[in-house]
Amino acid sequence: MGNSEFRVTLENRAKEINGILEKYLPVEEGRQKTVIEAMNYSVRAGGKRLRPILMWEAFLMCGGREEERESVEPFLAAIEMIHTYSLVHDDLPAMDNDEYRRGRKTTWSVYGEAMGILAGDGLLNYAFETAAKSFLRCPSQEHMGRAAAAFVTLSRKAGIYGMIGGQTADIEAEGQSAPLSEEQLLFIHEHKTAALIQAAMTVGAILAGAGQEQIDALEKCGYNVGIAFQIQDDILDVTGDSAELGKPVGSDAQNGKQTYVTWKGLEQAREDVTALSDEAVRILDGFTGEHSFLKELILSLIHRTK
Amino acid sequence: MGNSEFRVTLENRAKEINGILEKYLPVEEGRQKTVIEAMNYSVRAGGKRLRPILMWEAFLMCGGREEERESVEPFLAAIEMIHTYSLVHDDLPAMDNDEYRRGRKTTWSVYGEAMGILAGDGLLNYAFETAAKSFLRCPSQEHMGRAAAAFVTLSRKAGIYGMIGGQTADIEAEGQSAPLSEEQLLFIHEHKTAALIQAAMTVGAILAGAGQEQIDALEKCGYNVGIAFQIQDDILDVTGDSAELGKPVGSDAQNGKQTYVTWKGLEQAREDVTALSDEAVRILDGFTGEHSFLKELILSLIHRTK
Repeated sequence: MGNSEFRVTLENRAKEINGILEKYLPVEEGRQKTVIEAMNYSVRAGGKRLRPILMWEAFLMCGGREEERESVEPFLAAIEMIHTYSLVHDDLPAMDNDEYRRGRKTTWSVYGEAMGILAGDGLLNYAFETAAKSFLRCPSQEHMGRAAAAFVTLSRKAGIYGMIGGQTADIEAEGQSAPLSEEQLLFIHEHKTAALIQAAMTVGAILAGAGQEQIDALEKCGYNVGIAFQIQDDILDVTGDSAELGKPVGSDAQNGKQTYVTWKGLEQAREDVTALSDEAVRILDGFTGEHSFLKELILSLIHRTK
Repeated sequence: MGNSEFRVTLENRAKEINGILEKYLPVEEGRQKTVIEAMNYSVRAGGKRLRPILMWEAFLMCGGREEERESVEPFLAAIEMIHTYSLVHDDLPAMDNDEYRRGRKTTWSVYGEAMGILAGDGLLNYAFETAAKSFLRCPSQEHMGRAAAAFVTLSRKAGIYGMIGGQTADIEAEGQSAPLSEEQLLFIHEHKTAALIQAAMTVGAILAGAGQEQIDALEKCGYNVGIAFQIQDDILDVTGDSAELGKPVGSDAQNGKQTYVTWKGLEQAREDVTALSDEAVRILDGFTGEHSFLKELILSLIHRTK
């Protein structure tokens, strides 16, 4: 798959996900209109839609069929809503206190702090509400079992044993005077970022009816992709271009935040991104299903500049 | 059922629910220990455990059997976690800014604002994670279908079309200079409070395999109980005893907050509580299943002083 073909495919996939999200976003009406506006504002702020794209590609690679898309869609929408809620709450004054993200004002800075909290709560709740819709459209009992298992995985990886656990460790690390240990830093990256990438890939596999060995392999792959992605994020905070990124650079250093880069240095961090991504690709190559786009996507994470 | 028998039964039911909660609360360990401590602190702050008690009684009244308790327990724990998270976020400085609740310091005032946000997120997520555990222990496909339907109801009533919708309208009402309309006030009470009571009763019915007519009747009953409960709350903020309530009284008036009492007057508010509760009892009396304790519970809401 050539680079321009990959870019076109990636753009199309993101557009497809945006179309699915629009289908599932709540209508802005009623006395709860403001919180719905704030939720939709947050989701429509854009982003790479990486997690639903990874989920769909993992689903296809594991033998899922295009015709089954309707029962997968609720999960595609749900994981992006979960990702978005985490950003909305992360940006709050009591958390990272960010007024801009992706070149747009953050949710709380437009709608106020109380509505920022409620919009995040609303998105998290609506994500599970949306995923649960798949229960009502399963074509068979076997599909119902898969949807239930997928739900268990998604909710666990989003919670205290996944993303929220990572956010907790991250906040505590910011307040500590001693340097971060490697174990501490990797815990944060594994939970705050990798967990939801793992959820994306394993939920895709579970919904396709993959066996446990395949699910475990994709969990490992998702770990590598998530850690590599986060290290790259830390690298870009040092080397990136503010206009291209759509957010200020150097904010980690400014907040006295220790990152993979301050700990390992820029060169080692870059080498680690490459090694992690290479291993992730080797895992994918163990699958017989079509995965050329998925492979390119993972490789592109190494070279991304925004 | 005599008054002292009712009190003993209520106390026993609350103890049973506390036992179930302890079984489902996450263990305080790992690098995410602090958020888990904050979550458990919030749940262990006590409270009447009204929602899980209502759910279990509705389950039994609709023909559910004691032996099926294991598949109901995750929902009993989940609804109390959802109720608790809503209090944790409601107490935040950007929301109601309360430092005390039930005579204890609120979660954010013990663990800090960031951890208060994360503990609420953690509880909401863990509630759905916990409810999803019931999927893995359904004794039959029929039970699986019930659990899925119960999940759909619980998640909807907790979200923007339920509790979060009510919180949104409540916050907006606080900021408005014009007096609240009756429709606006009832929207807030229906969504902020009644929705989760409705969820409790209808989820209990759904898990017991009740028919749609029974589910609809309990939704109406839950509406009445929820509205009556909330009006009684407004009444107690005016007439209650601070030591007995375990929280300051007169806070609504102090915050310039309009309540059912400021709008309708104390006497009319009391009459409406009685009328709503009476109708709720009439609905329950339409059920052939045992419901003497459930009836007493609803009646006790009229006379509660804390």
